[in-house]
Amino acid sequence: MAFENVIRRVDPYVPGEQPKVKGIIKLNTNENPYAPAEGVIKAIEDLDKMDYTKYPDPEVSLLVHALAEYHGLDDDQVFVGVGSDDVISMSFLTFFNSGKPVFFPDITYSFYDVWANLYRIPFETKALTEDFRINPEDYKGENGGIIFPNPNAPTGMLESLDMIEDIVKANPDVICIVDEAYIDFGGETCLPLLDKYPNLLVVRTYSKSRSMAGMRIGYMCGSRELIKAINDVKFSFNSYTMNATSIVAGVASVEAEEYFRENIDKVIKTREWTKKELTRLGFEFPDSYANFIFAKHATVSGKDIFEALKAENIFVRHFNKPRINDYLRISIGTDEQMKTLIEKLEKIVK
Amino acid sequence: MAFENVIRRVDPYVPGEQPKVKGIIKLNTNENPYAPAEGVIKAIEDLDKMDYTKYPDPEVSLLVHALAEYHGLDDDQVFVGVGSDDVISMSFLTFFNSGKPVFFPDITYSFYDVWANLYRIPFETKALTEDFRINPEDYKGENGGIIFPNPNAPTGMLESLDMIEDIVKANPDVICIVDEAYIDFGGETCLPLLDKYPNLLVVRTYSKSRSMAGMRIGYMCGSRELIKAINDVKFSFNSYTMNATSIVAGVASVEAEEYFRENIDKVIKTREWTKKELTRLGFEFPDSYANFIFAKHATVSGKDIFEALKAENIFVRHFNKPRINDYLRISIGTDEQMKTLIEKLEKIVK
Repeated sequence: MAFENVIRRVDPYVPGEQPKVKGIIKLNTNENPYAPAEGVIKAIEDLDKMDYTKYPDPEVSLLVHALAEYHGLDDDQVFVGVGSDDVISMSFLTFFNSGKPVFFPDITYSFYDVWANLYRIPFETKALTEDFRINPEDYKGENGGIIFPNPNAPTGMLESLDMIEDIVKANPDVICIVDEAYIDFGGETCLPLLDKYPNLLVVRTYSKSRSMAGMRIGYMCGSRELIKAINDVKFSFNSYTMNATSIVAGVASVEAEEYFRENIDKVIKTREWTKKELTRLGFEFPDSYANFIFAKHATVSGKDIFEALKAENIFVRHFNKPRINDYLRISIGTDEQMKTLIEKLEKIVK
Repeated sequence: MAFENVIRRVDPYVPGEQPKVKGIIKLNTNENPYAPAEGVIKAIEDLDKMDYTKYPDPEVSLLVHALAEYHGLDDDQVFVGVGSDDVISMSFLTFFNSGKPVFFPDITYSFYDVWANLYRIPFETKALTEDFRINPEDYKGENGGIIFPNPNAPTGMLESLDMIEDIVKANPDVICIVDEAYIDFGGETCLPLLDKYPNLLVVRTYSKSRSMAGMRIGYMCGSRELIKAINDVKFSFNSYTMNATSIVAGVASVEAEEYFRENIDKVIKTREWTKKELTRLGFEFPDSYANFIFAKHATVSGKDIFEALKAENIFVRHFNKPRINDYLRISIGTDEQMKTLIEKLEKIVK
């Protein structure tokens, strides 16, 4: 067509399958197998019907305040978005604006290069070590910003606070973003570093530990200056991104701390059981601190196991990418789901 | 700070005030004064608690299908986003990509130039005529795309289908976007033109006629090729933008057609009553086909009336901009709210 050349062409990210059939075991998108707290659902039911017809608060003040208080920060140090994807995407646009390459690991969350390409931000990937660790020396050259998840995805590997501080300290002239999507499952947060490093941003999500992937809530903590800058960009896109239900549900989740901790403990316990069983079956994996395990089998290929599990209605994630195509990323489900998984794997790999 | 120069600086859009106090009359952001259908709230309450913990369908298939069916289109002709702001912002990025200036009216929705600046898209504004009409001849020069609302905002002025077809037909090599945020309040939609013009896109919102500003739902209808292109861009940002509640609420609204029509009829009736009263008080205004009236008084300035109403806890919108700073944009509320408004205005302008 004549107008072909005015349209921006991109390679869209392909998310994990969301099969619409019921009765499957879904261990492919790192969702929490447990429902959010009762208070979350009640908060939505308690909305006034006129809250639907009015625009929501564009500053999301209630939720920002609840999160700031939870983390011991000021309200102007917290930015909320439609899932951490929204927050990080907007961060690429806001903070990686120097024209110099942004650094991130070669094996990491697969959206980073998609956003860099979308916004035409140059980037360089830094190879993880053989055992999937970040080498901080790789992040000390001239760059336009740094981003990595901790624990990393899809490996589950946790880096130490010292290693993170080493990188953030070495890069005072650019913004360093640590994506802590999975930190609640046993990792040590780098939020305390915010006091010392105004160039650090820490991203969190409600989609994993808070059992609320369906509600699309993510947030970022950092210095006032950086949070103001991303708020200004957000207000240039769309003033009202968080709908009425997300705001009250997000607050209610923070208020249900005990339930939240119990849920996490259950997931961790199941993860540790699953690790033992996978080892018994001949799998190897980095020691995961996330709600998934990134495992490869000694003899059977990742693709073969992926297909065999799919035939049994068990969905895990397989990345057809260099260095990791023998691995499967297996989300931690309920005890019952993981027992079924292990039973099926036992037959597949024997 | 050292990293100042890596941050993107933008002038954020300033949305209409959302006062947090109760008991005010809020006629400043064109919200619907009536709640959405009971079915909308019921659909949210009927969600399974496990729907919160799972990622929502990234393709928003249920809602896309409901809207396609409603408009007599195919599913692959509909794109859904987080309010029409999300849809239009993404359209700027996707479709205004030629490097040539995009054309839109000088008096129009105030986000268009914000998005153009954010994405560094050149643009030229075309002056409306003295009586706030679009002159189609202005839109026939070489350009990188065209966008305007119909009815226009903040004027409420409706343009004819013939005039729109004239513009779309004259621009086969670029994308023409008609923002029909207010079309349900008495205007004639240009959706039937989609059959003839693959370069046309029509945007709708749930925030006005559907009483659901709080839920953040907007959508766009167009040719398969264009809808595929914007979906690809969307999947490069954030696969899961529509949360679980928005999806089911959006479908339920479409299913409650009778209630929807009744609501619109009430708003139109109140608007026509308000027009008569405003005329009686010495106001002039373009004949609005939207859920607001854009009015100026013969003797009292817009700013003075704005401030006087605010002192009475009535919020309307005043734009401190060339050509329109004597006008107020007054959203249509309930009969009772508009009676109070007229009573107060009677004292202010006498």
